Amino acid sequence: MTATYAPLNPTPRILLGPGPSNVPPAVYRAMSAPLVGHLDPEFVALMEEVKQMLREVMLTKNATTFPVSGTGSAGMEFCCVNLIEPSDEVLICVNGVFGARMTDVAQRCGAQVATVQAPWGRIIEPEAVATALKEMKAPKLVGIVHAETSTGVRQPMEEIARIAHDHGALLLMDCVTSLGGCPVRVDDWQVDAAYSGTQKCLSCPPGLAPVTFGARALEKATKRRTKAQSWYLDLNLLAGYWGQDRVYHHTAPVTMNYALREALRLVLEEGLEKRWARHEQNHYALKAGLEAIGLKLASQEGHQLWQLNSVTIPAGVDDATVRRRLLQRYNIEIGGGLGEWKGKTWRVGLMGESSREENVMLFLAALGNILNDFGCRIDTGAALSAASAVYRQRGEKRCEA
Amino acid sequence: MTATYAPLNPTPRILLGPGPSNVPPAVYRAMSAPLVGHLDPEFVALMEEVKQMLREVMLTKNATTFPVSGTGSAGMEFCCVNLIEPSDEVLICVNGVFGARMTDVAQRCGAQVATVQAPWGRIIEPEAVATALKEMKAPKLVGIVHAETSTGVRQPMEEIARIAHDHGALLLMDCVTSLGGCPVRVDDWQVDAAYSGTQKCLSCPPGLAPVTFGARALEKATKRRTKAQSWYLDLNLLAGYWGQDRVYHHTAPVTMNYALREALRLVLEEGLEKRWARHEQNHYALKAGLEAIGLKLASQEGHQLWQLNSVTIPAGVDDATVRRRLLQRYNIEIGGGLGEWKGKTWRVGLMGESSREENVMLFLAALGNILNDFGCRIDTGAALSAASAVYRQRGEKRCEA
Repeated sequence: MTATYAPLNPTPRILLGPGPSNVPPAVYRAMSAPLVGHLDPEFVALMEEVKQMLREVMLTKNATTFPVSGTGSAGMEFCCVNLIEPSDEVLICVNGVFGARMTDVAQRCGAQVATVQAPWGRIIEPEAVATALKEMKAPKLVGIVHAETSTGVRQPMEEIARIAHDHGALLLMDCVTSLGGCPVRVDDWQVDAAYSGTQKCLSCPPGLAPVTFGARALEKATKRRTKAQSWYLDLNLLAGYWGQDRVYHHTAPVTMNYALREALRLVLEEGLEKRWARHEQNHYALKAGLEAIGLKLASQEGHQLWQLNSVTIPAGVDDATVRRRLLQRYNIEIGGGLGEWKGKTWRVGLMGESSREENVMLFLAALGNILNDFGCRIDTGAALSAASAVYRQRGEKRCEA
Repeated sequence: MTATYAPLNPTPRILLGPGPSNVPPAVYRAMSAPLVGHLDPEFVALMEEVKQMLREVMLTKNATTFPVSGTGSAGMEFCCVNLIEPSDEVLICVNGVFGARMTDVAQRCGAQVATVQAPWGRIIEPEAVATALKEMKAPKLVGIVHAETSTGVRQPMEEIARIAHDHGALLLMDCVTSLGGCPVRVDDWQVDAAYSGTQKCLSCPPGLAPVTFGARALEKATKRRTKAQSWYLDLNLLAGYWGQDRVYHHTAPVTMNYALREALRLVLEEGLEKRWARHEQNHYALKAGLEAIGLKLASQEGHQLWQLNSVTIPAGVDDATVRRRLLQRYNIEIGGGLGEWKGKTWRVGLMGESSREENVMLFLAALGNILNDFGCRIDTGAALSAASAVYRQRGEKRCEA
């Protein structure tokens, strides 16, 4: 009794949620390139290209830089299972969902986890990290999220990396949402290990997790007393597969690597600085438009992400209804709040290919219309004018960072 | 100093290795369908379809049937981390690379692992499993590979499942290479948990691992004393994501799920029995052709896989040279031997879309030419005639199984 299945025909969406973002046509085309074997000399050459492109995008010289064959969360787990040994003391910074997730993952690795907490929407203060580390005997690792996707906050990294090193700990950075949308400087910041995802500001479909390990992280991972608890994510095995020896491990997702190569090529073609500036500009335009109609970003002023905007939902407006109408009437996807902010914020992503002036304008227009249906008296024209002014004023200005 | 990268332009290959297999045009097209968000109602509907299609292909009614967001090996790890608790007694059957891998994965889960060994190329005898289980105190799990991709042997499953249950153990089956290419009857065989891959006989690019858990496996996984050591692969979290609640966990690889849906749709459109018969027929044609020129399969007579043929390399012939020439001159990929059989066998896959009469004929023709370059005196015409006779004799006969 086999059911019949209709042809696949998904509706084109404008993806303004917390990821995935829209995919450029060239990346779709890359995925229809003929599949070769994962040990084919042509794929081996492509692996080298992907590694090199990732180094350029992550601003690192780390030889150990490659995409893990899973989504961003697999990247987090990859870093934890390789860097943490049972009973290691670990400090995790928690100011949103992804710091909390890292705590869970580290605990499952057998770590003794301490946390530094900050209220949702605020950054982790370096002093708090220093204080916490002083209370630990021999902290081995500090884990922190650069772009907290649940709140839209951008974490300053450099000072915390220095503090971690002063206490003899490695610094692990989550740059899932930041990479490709704002400066991520792995080497300059002295980040020891970092992981990202493909479906945010790289605008590649979800499915791979770029990771990078510096010398100190590599030493920790290769000189463990015990095997990593994960075979699939064991760096010592993966380094053989992604390194010069090409020792068979798993079968790499060939097509996803085609897609990532093309997405990274487009990032480098645009240029990192220009791409960051584009994300910055669209963020300020969106923010200006929202403020003109009385809507505020929920994250800390001065530390707001350009690529992910947490918007406080006005009183009397139903979260789910607005999101449903945006999707049904305008084919616009935005995200709902997570955790503490569920029902209290919307998450509006302007990531990668989705970070475009036309998307800012359409979103403001659509939101204005929908809120007016709720009886709000929104001057949608004012929102559009305010956003438009940002483009006029900023012009071709390079980004701040 | 950004390097420039050439356009992606991989050479079309005839994929006759141990996977990936060739991908049908409709699956390539599915991957260029517009990306929607992973919480989009359209994707949620697609998730249900994929689950249902997988049940039909795996011949199971198990509600907990879905693709894990990683490759086949991630499926193995998913099953182990959820089914094994620290210090559980586990029996793993080892007659090739993938049984050995399962042993490693189970040990990393903290299991006390005993093994039943059989020589490479031979099946695991049910009596050996019974004997081994009798020597264990409280065996919790028996792990076994249905289609051992390193040797080309097909393992009879039913009796071993019964023996495992008689001893109070669950049966975990690796059907990475078997699913879609020969009968895999999860419910009839009373398999408690199974995992597969997409890039073998389903002819979808690598990147997902279909898994299924029956009632007993589900009970074990949900009533653990300890959390699964993997957050990414924790069934209790994934069941929330793939179940009715759609609790956010990771971001599913949307495009890979498009591909899998289309690949499964094609499997069901062809029909399982017809698809198995196609694999059977092409296997016998290949085998007849090889035997006509004095080449033998290395795996146990009567238990040879249809989709993966381990061919003994004739004396005086260099493994790597032949494979390189097949690739360079004919764009044919075959696999080398692994482990004990490295340099001793070739692995010729006839999986999914790659299992075609024209591929059998071209491979025999190409191999004959190349071996003659080595000074072998191969009557390539005899190989082709012998293969051709199989198609004439078998005609439209349904498969044996």
